[in-house]
Amino acid sequence: MTPPRDAILALYNRIADLSHAAAILEWDQETYMPDGATPSRAHQIATLRRLAHEFATSDELRQALESLESYVREEPDDDFAAALARIGRRDFDRATRLPANFVAKLAETESRAKTAWRLAREANDFSRLRDDLEGIVDLNKEKAALLGFDDHPYDALLDQFEPGMTTAAVSGLFSDLRAELVPIVAAIAEKRDDRASLLRREFDPAKQWEIGERLIRQIGFDFNAGRQDLSAHPFCTSFSIDDVRITTRVDPDFIPSAFFGTLHETGHGLYEQGVDRRFERTPLADGTSLGMHESQSRMWENQVGRSRPFVDFVWPILTGAFAQLSGSGAEDIYRAINAVEPSLIRVEADEVTYNLHVMLRFELEVALFENRLEVRDLPHAWNEAMDAYLGVRPSGDAAGVLQDIHWSMGGFGYFPTYTIGNLMSAQLFERAAEEIADLDERIRRGRFDALLLWLRHNVHRHGRSKSAESILRDVTDRGLTAEPWLAYVRTKYSDLYDLDLR
Amino acid sequence: MTPPRDAILALYNRIADLSHAAAILEWDQETYMPDGATPSRAHQIATLRRLAHEFATSDELRQALESLESYVREEPDDDFAAALARIGRRDFDRATRLPANFVAKLAETESRAKTAWRLAREANDFSRLRDDLEGIVDLNKEKAALLGFDDHPYDALLDQFEPGMTTAAVSGLFSDLRAELVPIVAAIAEKRDDRASLLRREFDPAKQWEIGERLIRQIGFDFNAGRQDLSAHPFCTSFSIDDVRITTRVDPDFIPSAFFGTLHETGHGLYEQGVDRRFERTPLADGTSLGMHESQSRMWENQVGRSRPFVDFVWPILTGAFAQLSGSGAEDIYRAINAVEPSLIRVEADEVTYNLHVMLRFELEVALFENRLEVRDLPHAWNEAMDAYLGVRPSGDAAGVLQDIHWSMGGFGYFPTYTIGNLMSAQLFERAAEEIADLDERIRRGRFDALLLWLRHNVHRHGRSKSAESILRDVTDRGLTAEPWLAYVRTKYSDLYDLDLR
Repeated sequence: MTPPRDAILALYNRIADLSHAAAILEWDQETYMPDGATPSRAHQIATLRRLAHEFATSDELRQALESLESYVREEPDDDFAAALARIGRRDFDRATRLPANFVAKLAETESRAKTAWRLAREANDFSRLRDDLEGIVDLNKEKAALLGFDDHPYDALLDQFEPGMTTAAVSGLFSDLRAELVPIVAAIAEKRDDRASLLRREFDPAKQWEIGERLIRQIGFDFNAGRQDLSAHPFCTSFSIDDVRITTRVDPDFIPSAFFGTLHETGHGLYEQGVDRRFERTPLADGTSLGMHESQSRMWENQVGRSRPFVDFVWPILTGAFAQLSGSGAEDIYRAINAVEPSLIRVEADEVTYNLHVMLRFELEVALFENRLEVRDLPHAWNEAMDAYLGVRPSGDAAGVLQDIHWSMGGFGYFPTYTIGNLMSAQLFERAAEEIADLDERIRRGRFDALLLWLRHNVHRHGRSKSAESILRDVTDRGLTAEPWLAYVRTKYSDLYDLDLR
Repeated sequence: MTPPRDAILALYNRIADLSHAAAILEWDQETYMPDGATPSRAHQIATLRRLAHEFATSDELRQALESLESYVREEPDDDFAAALARIGRRDFDRATRLPANFVAKLAETESRAKTAWRLAREANDFSRLRDDLEGIVDLNKEKAALLGFDDHPYDALLDQFEPGMTTAAVSGLFSDLRAELVPIVAAIAEKRDDRASLLRREFDPAKQWEIGERLIRQIGFDFNAGRQDLSAHPFCTSFSIDDVRITTRVDPDFIPSAFFGTLHETGHGLYEQGVDRRFERTPLADGTSLGMHESQSRMWENQVGRSRPFVDFVWPILTGAFAQLSGSGAEDIYRAINAVEPSLIRVEADEVTYNLHVMLRFELEVALFENRLEVRDLPHAWNEAMDAYLGVRPSGDAAGVLQDIHWSMGGFGYFPTYTIGNLMSAQLFERAAEEIADLDERIRRGRFDALLLWLRHNVHRHGRSKSAESILRDVTDRGLTAEPWLAYVRTKYSDLYDLDLR
């Protein structure tokens, strides 16, 4: 008889191959595919996803999983098998809890809502999305019930993206954070200046691209196991531990767009490239949670990329490539890339105000799922919260409640992982800086190997075999906390804005 | 009950989606994939191909096919259903005649032989491939028996690529052609000169690329339903009638490589883009035979691309882009791109000598399958034939019997389709020139729409629903013949080499 581990691996390999093939088709669609292929590509991806889902919910897999679980009870020291059984059970139960009819109805509603969102945003009119969004919220309430939860329906949605995370935990964390952050933002807002204008000039796109690739190669992105391409919206996807694709976009009039976008996606890419090779073609070969994934992208983008030592490292490269920066010192660039400006749009927000955008969304989502808020009242609630948190108020829905696609795609429970990732990145980086001698000096000299190795060892290699919570506890001796991130912000921005935020 | 047509279409759609997904993965592998992904990509492609094969040989498909066949007997006027039943039966029988064990053994031997071929070619030593090639030939004899044939085992192999074609027909055609062609080649060889040196200079690769894309856009390649990329070996593949990908390579020191390579692959691409949209996601959405496919690529490459009117059209474009050509007249360029030189390597051969390379391979293949020739005697037989046909003799195996990968990949029966395609291209083009008023003048003015429309109507739209033989008979009132191609060569090269070849 085939041992239980081998039997289930053959099944998982097939599912992984189908899912990765679908991801390749999706990557191609965002990078190279001609427009005319849109309908045929939709069929192809649907066929691959449907087959993967059929195999992932099959009786064959159920039986193989049960055999694996018995084997693990007999051989508790087989860590690989134990992790596979745990993650396999989680995935199988989640996949089988949603009936095919429900999944089809949700997909159909989301597809309609995505189009409605585009039209509503163009028309700057939330009412055009309202009916479809009500449908999506109702279906997500049903989804929460189908997936199951102990305390709060929103727990079930959160758990899709951040396994084990609860509404209560996020609420506690976020309300503390908000209480501290709002006055910090207000204090900085009073000292606002035009330091960022330095970066709003013409920068040759080809040179921007070249510098980006040079930097991420030096950081450790393995171009033998990945590549970078252009796309309308930057993303990272992987088809294998040895095939990780990142994309960026280049704004010819604003250098931070490509520069930090590239560092951000590289952080995601390094995580995917760093997973233990034993996990290839299994459910373990992925990031353990969206928050942990985001912690990696934000660490390279912010803790590293927007730091003073990193600016010292890139300053000669930037001023060498762009004559328009030749009169600027490293300090000017450091101040420019860290300009804080309360603004309306999340994806353009600086690292200080960013989390307030996320908290606002989280609070509205929870209110919807507690039936304290109706979909039709979202625009008003949105604008009030923007005013309270950031002191700005959208002039219309397009710059407010309609700015993100997530809700129309049914992505409730997703937004909090952005802030969770920011907090994790500071929590992990604080520890890395304690454990790696002269980390600042290494970064200043463009030596990223020690940090990457530290992340490989502590985070990347585990893939999904270790939860985000366990990683944090093992590495930092405590669970998720906002303290390191707040300490980082207070120190950095006290200095940058000549304030005493401590 | 679902009508038989709809039932089988759902099954074919799934198979088409899987096969197209595999083709996308293969395309990516040749264009953008990082090297490190080679092993994981092999798994992914194998999984998709295996699933497609399982569905293509399933009892479910067999039953749906039988229902379709009954339906067609009752409704003989449903042309679409009739074509689907005919091609569906052909594909199903071929797919089920080869047992899974046999297919696996063949794949394994071919994979080993491909590596052996690379090493043998590097070492310039046929003996390193001999054992594996003997295995391949033996398995192909077994394959012919499994597929079945009436007269000649080689018929079964030929039929894989050129449905309905027989060894007897090809032998007759080729021996007539050879008798006429050898003296033509010898006569031209006596007048050999260095007219081609004009094209062996440095040509900016970016400009070569730009001109290529401009030309094929003008010819009618639809970039909304396809694209061109770079790859080591040029090819054409399609994932949908609306997603046809061609590739080219650019030699910075020899402009014809990209120029005619691009025209060649565009000819293939136009065929794929021109198939009737009703056939999308069915077995009918493909070229009807490799010969007919090659006729389309060779027509745009040779009958159009190497013609005097086409040179008149591109001459201002080329001389405008490349200063090094500015002293050359259109006539110089026309003579340079049509230089005839008996040479050792098929893929570098001019259009006159090319078919002799193909015939030589066909004759050796038939001799192997008639047991008149042993694998170990191939190098000697090869060199003798090269001497007899082309007056050249390879100094070693690498430039002789080892030059092509086809045999080590088990591609017996494939080579003849290259010459069949050349003959078809001349036969079809001769008729097109009769039916389209002022075709030369149109080409001279860069107006390709009438020719493309003629090909769309007579060839492309039919996909696999009409055999190559039927197309030829309907369009040219006769079956495949070498006469138009010989007439074309005699006229063109009499003029080019100041000879009387008529």
